[in-house]
Amino acid sequence: MNAYHQLVEHVKNISHFEHLAAICGWDQAAMMPTGGAPARAEAMAALHVHIHQLMNQPQLAEWFAQAEQAPLTTEQQAVLREMKRRWQQNTVLPESLVQAKSIAGARCEHAWRQQKQDNDWAGFAANWEEVVKLSREEAQIRAAATGKTPYDAMLDLYEPGASTQTLDRLFDDVKSWLPSLIDQVIEKQSHESVQLPRGNYPSETQKSLGLAVMQLLQFDFDHGRLDESTHPFCGGVPSDVRITTRYSEAEFVQSLMGIVHETGHARYEQGLPKAYAGTAAGEARSMGIHESQSLFFEMQIGRNPQFISHLAELAARHFNAHNDPVFAEANLQKLYTRVNKDFIRVDADELTYPAHVILRYEIERDLMNGVIEFRDVPELWDQKMQHYLGLSTQGNYRQGCMQDIHWTDGSFGYFPSYTLGAMYAAQFMAAMKKTVDVDGAIRSGDLSPIFNWLSANIWSKGSLFTTDELVKQATEETLNPAHFKAHLESRYLG
Amino acid sequence: MNAYHQLVEHVKNISHFEHLAAICGWDQAAMMPTGGAPARAEAMAALHVHIHQLMNQPQLAEWFAQAEQAPLTTEQQAVLREMKRRWQQNTVLPESLVQAKSIAGARCEHAWRQQKQDNDWAGFAANWEEVVKLSREEAQIRAAATGKTPYDAMLDLYEPGASTQTLDRLFDDVKSWLPSLIDQVIEKQSHESVQLPRGNYPSETQKSLGLAVMQLLQFDFDHGRLDESTHPFCGGVPSDVRITTRYSEAEFVQSLMGIVHETGHARYEQGLPKAYAGTAAGEARSMGIHESQSLFFEMQIGRNPQFISHLAELAARHFNAHNDPVFAEANLQKLYTRVNKDFIRVDADELTYPAHVILRYEIERDLMNGVIEFRDVPELWDQKMQHYLGLSTQGNYRQGCMQDIHWTDGSFGYFPSYTLGAMYAAQFMAAMKKTVDVDGAIRSGDLSPIFNWLSANIWSKGSLFTTDELVKQATEETLNPAHFKAHLESRYLG
Repeated sequence: MNAYHQLVEHVKNISHFEHLAAICGWDQAAMMPTGGAPARAEAMAALHVHIHQLMNQPQLAEWFAQAEQAPLTTEQQAVLREMKRRWQQNTVLPESLVQAKSIAGARCEHAWRQQKQDNDWAGFAANWEEVVKLSREEAQIRAAATGKTPYDAMLDLYEPGASTQTLDRLFDDVKSWLPSLIDQVIEKQSHESVQLPRGNYPSETQKSLGLAVMQLLQFDFDHGRLDESTHPFCGGVPSDVRITTRYSEAEFVQSLMGIVHETGHARYEQGLPKAYAGTAAGEARSMGIHESQSLFFEMQIGRNPQFISHLAELAARHFNAHNDPVFAEANLQKLYTRVNKDFIRVDADELTYPAHVILRYEIERDLMNGVIEFRDVPELWDQKMQHYLGLSTQGNYRQGCMQDIHWTDGSFGYFPSYTLGAMYAAQFMAAMKKTVDVDGAIRSGDLSPIFNWLSANIWSKGSLFTTDELVKQATEETLNPAHFKAHLESRYLG
Repeated sequence: MNAYHQLVEHVKNISHFEHLAAICGWDQAAMMPTGGAPARAEAMAALHVHIHQLMNQPQLAEWFAQAEQAPLTTEQQAVLREMKRRWQQNTVLPESLVQAKSIAGARCEHAWRQQKQDNDWAGFAANWEEVVKLSREEAQIRAAATGKTPYDAMLDLYEPGASTQTLDRLFDDVKSWLPSLIDQVIEKQSHESVQLPRGNYPSETQKSLGLAVMQLLQFDFDHGRLDESTHPFCGGVPSDVRITTRYSEAEFVQSLMGIVHETGHARYEQGLPKAYAGTAAGEARSMGIHESQSLFFEMQIGRNPQFISHLAELAARHFNAHNDPVFAEANLQKLYTRVNKDFIRVDADELTYPAHVILRYEIERDLMNGVIEFRDVPELWDQKMQHYLGLSTQGNYRQGCMQDIHWTDGSFGYFPSYTLGAMYAAQFMAAMKKTVDVDGAIRSGDLSPIFNWLSANIWSKGSLFTTDELVKQATEETLNPAHFKAHLESRYLG
């Protein structure tokens, strides 16, 4: 067996243990009783040590060196490139830093859960200072290894190929038109009336409605399932994708669209190329592309009037309430496109969401590059919230810079993926419409033409191409925020 | 760290991977969609290879040798004894035999699922011959290593300390009174009438009834849960016990008592000594003792008239059918104590069950010891069924020697545990009644005195004592079939 095949066998073996980690991780969130946690944490730690050891075996460097000299097909070169990228990211940090960050991150995140409720910035900052310090060390080591800036090196973990230069350009564009668009839309919507859902929507009924919508979205139930967890997510493995949601019996709107969103993630996973399963080339291209698929489902399909029409019909049927004005098509459409300036990112609507993300991007970028310090964050947050959304978070840390989990354990570089995803989704839809009758497909109830396009252009490509190559092949240009702007203007002002 | 502590650390590390195997195994049976199977099988195989490698690390022999020379407390000696027993059992076979048996067993079991439906003895025998041959090789190697007979060496895997000599004595005793007792009871019951359940009993209602019964049995829901699977079982780990059941909407009787049975297994697991978690000494004593707990719950508690009274009340309430004669206390009692001579072990009642087990014991004993050949089995089965239960299985392999899964993959030596468990359960009840007002406790709805006795005498002891020591400490004698006989006579003729 040559070095290339030895590498492939080795990473496939690692992928088996990652498979078990994914299933047990899902179990932890969706199934495990509380008392199971301590023993499970020990078992998962042993599993992660084992994966880490496999990833750090000394012969790998030699195999990579040999494989890079060997004659390989184009596909094999892509597989090798992605295997190496993952290997380097996983092995570049000294063990001591990995452990220190893991301990500091776990401590900070754990304490944050209470500190957030208590609006306790001082308590949080005491732990967070260390997380920021260690994350900067990480960023510097990754930067030295890749020749990037510290923040770009962190960004690369989630969005390979993305850079501050590109993001600044994209987000500056968005900032040039978003605030005034938001104001226009809010003014327009202030003249509309909408019927809010008022319970009681039983979880069981919401679940069967959710399953019906997943069916419409052609989720493959032979390779996945739907369950419940406190924080909805898409987990598992491509052959067995586990999505979760959370039901509130007071309303059905959020959970239903949450299921549509997670189904987008899931269909991407289910559609990844099986021939490359177990290697990095068979995995999702990036967090932004992953989010582009969930947001394609949630925003591009899910809020399409033809789709809302299906939702209205299905919801009225499941809740046995055909004359309830809440379920009227026009009302649902309004419910799903209401725009509000508010503090909390995870509750934000499609239009204000990018403002939340850009704010975080600008802060974490400067934090990682050493331009600002951890103690500057609340003040900057307040300034930017006032600037982008006209809201002050002075002294309101809970609804300000302490609201998200990402920074508590040092996951700097993740936030841009959300808005990149939204932009890619709009661009994919614009390209798809050149050859696919999207409205007609949705109206007919057979959405296959849409999914065939996504499968052919995105899902089946895995990580065989760079993000720029993938997007260019699919849409004939790299990421262009004009599509996002056109989409938002058409939906909210059209 | 001395050799003893090195061993403990090592087996605890192994136990973390066994934890993950248990959870993923449960997931496979209770949650996984069909399409997830191939990738999961590969992941589980990688996990088992890893566990096997950990178990076979060369330094272990040296550590055992050193630890056996070291000054250890009595508890440490017990831990060492159990660790060593497990290690020897896991390492004594040559790798080639383990693999050959695993492949032959998997092939035979897989084909059996269809062959059983087709009553295809010839097809089955073609695969099974190899399984029997390899199992005999296994038995001989285990025998050589332990100084036991081949069958006793296999028995030792499930019932450490048990022997053909003891089993022959116990089962000869049972055989001397069981057939006539069965006939007497069937004659007696032929004059009784009983109302059979006739659907529709919705699964959801059965589940909430099952959960209520588990509550009564003080199942710890903070450390376990109830789900569904084709073949009910008790899995997971002591800190997180996963029991499953299967609902038929045509009746509720079987599933309800199935939940009681699995809850017995589960409470044993939940009650194992936490101080020894992760070492063999913290595990269940044997399959027979495990079954003694499930059968204590199912037969000793579950069919106690006071408990049936609770079941009648709970079932009538959940199915909202207070005047339905099916749920009358006396009728439920009859439903749960009906005796029938029939072909299938898993559907057998308490009284005929031992006949099914003894028949299998006698055949597998002689098969492993080379007294009979695989091709003799159908004929012997027919003879013994005629003798013990008056039923012929001539040409009826499906309901004869092909009905069970155990032999298809070479799990010879397991069957006796079922009846040992029933006997232990009767003996534990007889001993418990000397100090505990069992009927009063059940009547009151607070069964704590019963569980306190089981916890103090069985659960909390793990594998710190041999089975004989454990039983003698709990009941002042080793296994005595007189208690089983007295229990059956009192219940069925009293």
